[in-house]
Amino acid sequence: MSKHFDVVVIGAGPAGYIAAIRAAQLGLSVACAEGNAYADPKGEPRLGGTCLNVGCIPSKALLASSEEFEKVQHHLDDHGISVSGAKLDVVKMVARKEAIVTKMTKGIEFLFRKNKVTLLKGYGKFVGKTDAGYQIDVAGEVVTATHAIIATGSKARHLPGIAVDNKMICDNEGALNFETVPKKLGVIGAGVIGLELGSVWRRLGAEVEVLEAMPTFLAAADDAVAKEMQKLLTAQGLQFSFGVKIGEVKQGKKGVTVNYADQDGKAQVLECDKLIVSVGRAPNTDGLNLESIGLKANERGQIDVNDYCQTAAVNVWAIGDVVRGPMLAHKGEEEGVMVAELLAGQAGHCNYNTVPWVIYTSPEVAWVGKTEQQLKAEGAAYKVGSFPFMANGRALGQGDAQGFVKILADATTDEILGAHIVNAHASDLIAEVVMAMEFKAASEDIGRICHAHPSLSEVVKEAALACDKRALNM
Amino acid sequence: MSKHFDVVVIGAGPAGYIAAIRAAQLGLSVACAEGNAYADPKGEPRLGGTCLNVGCIPSKALLASSEEFEKVQHHLDDHGISVSGAKLDVVKMVARKEAIVTKMTKGIEFLFRKNKVTLLKGYGKFVGKTDAGYQIDVAGEVVTATHAIIATGSKARHLPGIAVDNKMICDNEGALNFETVPKKLGVIGAGVIGLELGSVWRRLGAEVEVLEAMPTFLAAADDAVAKEMQKLLTAQGLQFSFGVKIGEVKQGKKGVTVNYADQDGKAQVLECDKLIVSVGRAPNTDGLNLESIGLKANERGQIDVNDYCQTAAVNVWAIGDVVRGPMLAHKGEEEGVMVAELLAGQAGHCNYNTVPWVIYTSPEVAWVGKTEQQLKAEGAAYKVGSFPFMANGRALGQGDAQGFVKILADATTDEILGAHIVNAHASDLIAEVVMAMEFKAASEDIGRICHAHPSLSEVVKEAALACDKRALNM
Repeated sequence: MSKHFDVVVIGAGPAGYIAAIRAAQLGLSVACAEGNAYADPKGEPRLGGTCLNVGCIPSKALLASSEEFEKVQHHLDDHGISVSGAKLDVVKMVARKEAIVTKMTKGIEFLFRKNKVTLLKGYGKFVGKTDAGYQIDVAGEVVTATHAIIATGSKARHLPGIAVDNKMICDNEGALNFETVPKKLGVIGAGVIGLELGSVWRRLGAEVEVLEAMPTFLAAADDAVAKEMQKLLTAQGLQFSFGVKIGEVKQGKKGVTVNYADQDGKAQVLECDKLIVSVGRAPNTDGLNLESIGLKANERGQIDVNDYCQTAAVNVWAIGDVVRGPMLAHKGEEEGVMVAELLAGQAGHCNYNTVPWVIYTSPEVAWVGKTEQQLKAEGAAYKVGSFPFMANGRALGQGDAQGFVKILADATTDEILGAHIVNAHASDLIAEVVMAMEFKAASEDIGRICHAHPSLSEVVKEAALACDKRALNM
Repeated sequence: MSKHFDVVVIGAGPAGYIAAIRAAQLGLSVACAEGNAYADPKGEPRLGGTCLNVGCIPSKALLASSEEFEKVQHHLDDHGISVSGAKLDVVKMVARKEAIVTKMTKGIEFLFRKNKVTLLKGYGKFVGKTDAGYQIDVAGEVVTATHAIIATGSKARHLPGIAVDNKMICDNEGALNFETVPKKLGVIGAGVIGLELGSVWRRLGAEVEVLEAMPTFLAAADDAVAKEMQKLLTAQGLQFSFGVKIGEVKQGKKGVTVNYADQDGKAQVLECDKLIVSVGRAPNTDGLNLESIGLKANERGQIDVNDYCQTAAVNVWAIGDVVRGPMLAHKGEEEGVMVAELLAGQAGHCNYNTVPWVIYTSPEVAWVGKTEQQLKAEGAAYKVGSFPFMANGRALGQGDAQGFVKILADATTDEILGAHIVNAHASDLIAEVVMAMEFKAASEDIGRICHAHPSLSEVVKEAALACDKRALNM
């Protein structure tokens, strides 16, 4: 007889591993299946999915290293610090990144042991359903599960006719592991990944040219943020072309040639040593054999779910990048906790309106709730308060006073509808506004709450006061 | 006839200038008197008080510079970055600090003009009261005010027999302006100012020895924080002696000799090139001529006020360091706004329980609400949740995973009673908890709210979950 679990989670990325741990905490017997997409040198699966292995965590390690290199070269003179001969050892920088990834992925193995989550090594694949539950094949062994949670994540979307070898033409995986700094780096797609990795290699010395099919920059962000970031990133040396149509891409011995039409339809050529293709991500459903349990992926490749992440198959749930909603690790984690609590009989819930977004450029971008253009499109009556970090003593002290906080509030009730931050610490600062929005706070609430001086969070307070035209320091 | 104002504020530090601006925003005629304690080279008063001129702002500028110097020398190798010959130009570093101070103080002059606050140059001094209001002499000119707000701040407390010349024996003012890095720096007093400035000069190369009269370290902080910070600062090379009794201090041509008794009563000698005396601050009431309006300072040198900052004299208010409560700029600012709103007929209010504390060492310390030892002393039933930054991917990526978040919650209601953070970004991270506490949030609220991944704020969430023994990543 096959092994039986209350819950089998397929995929050990942030959504899956969190769901597994939470379900185990609630007393359920849990297994989690993970294949070897990110195998270690011995071929063993490394846990944590895209996020830990080739996404959020390694990219943030490289961001930090490249920011230090940038600072050493260009921003110490102000402080009265001079150095000679700053040199970069790319292999060592990448090794540091790998060490952090290894520490974090090993950490999940520890958490699984501690919480008694059984790790099943191999890709999970549905076989069918019996009275005992869903049958899931993992590397030839079939287990049964009362509840199945699909958390298979996503993979980089590639473009037809452009063969990604992750040596010269790379997606997010290869772009984390260059052994030298390319002289000229091409990037197709000015989304989050393209901007983050493009600016890493820019700071390390590459000339970076970004081609974007959309006519405008960062369409999902608030217009004021998009405008500011385009200005700042351009000043950092990133070159952008919008509204392009990618044509033939040829890989030679020494580099890549990208033929494209610019926004006026004129033929252009980009020659580069390395090319990053970052045109979005596609849900992973191949090999799940969804048909065997009466499911199929929708036209976007996702598994359809309701607000509680239930699929059309009873007791089969799907969470994270494989379902609708933003492809953000913390959105998947929230869904993982919600589903674990629901199937343990608790009242799980996800507030999708307060899921923050972060782009880890330098400065960072973070936002939560609605953008101004969304509110305009809805015909909402709103007010706006903005405040620049240039008027904040801590930001000046730190030597990074770029960016602003912009808060949008309901014109009548003053409820905060959105907040948009451009700042080196935006990912820290957004947490306060998320908290406020969860409590349906008014902008006046933030304006009346004590903020430490001197701190960057004072700018959040001033932006809130500015909604009522009463900023104190502007 | 003398000029009359609805409000005259005495002192243009953070409490005073904010009160003046807020009162002016509310339609009152406002003047603000400032003497030349921090005069510019032309002898003109510089606004912003201790905080902007010789406190928060300049110290944070030096902290940033010294942290960069520390990093260049010791923490880049990890990233694969090598530099040779890092040199420090102290004069340039101090000039950068001065430029930031000037920018900020000039900013307040601009704000006064914009908000139509009349700047009265000179120290304000009460003369008496007529039917027209309180008479206040400023540099020989008498103005009258319906309401007077005393915001004269505080000055460094000195020790009897130790003459501070701010060259060799310094308080916070001199310690911001050394022209070279002392070889050996002595610090009397392990409070916030001693720790911040001591660690600045330590990072720049000084050997630093700190003498503290109290038997323990950072008694106001949570015990776990005090213990962690003592360990971290000691590892950074600061030497501490507790329970000392300072004896004779002699200033020679080349340095200072501090005779003291150690905690065992044994005679000891500290020889240093420079000495910082940082043993607290005393309210500024000298010269106010309080008696002329029937007021006097209390035995602690403060002006007595009620919860609304009203003094015993009708329509005379006092705010900031000159009254009870912590000597924190943002506490004074809150009081400034409260008083301005009250005297404009609005419903001003200050929640002293949610005033955050920050110590700008490296890492920073921030807290809000009760410490664990306070709860123990009150006999409160509470639970504790802690989480280390060492288990946070962003902290590891940034290369600074020191410290933790500790949250204290009511054992029955789960309401958050206090939060204590040791981390490089603690001053940013505390804002979320202040917000939560203002809404009487339970630790479960923080645990159920989405936090961006990867971000340092995830540690706040995990510490909240740990209150209920259900941290996910530990």
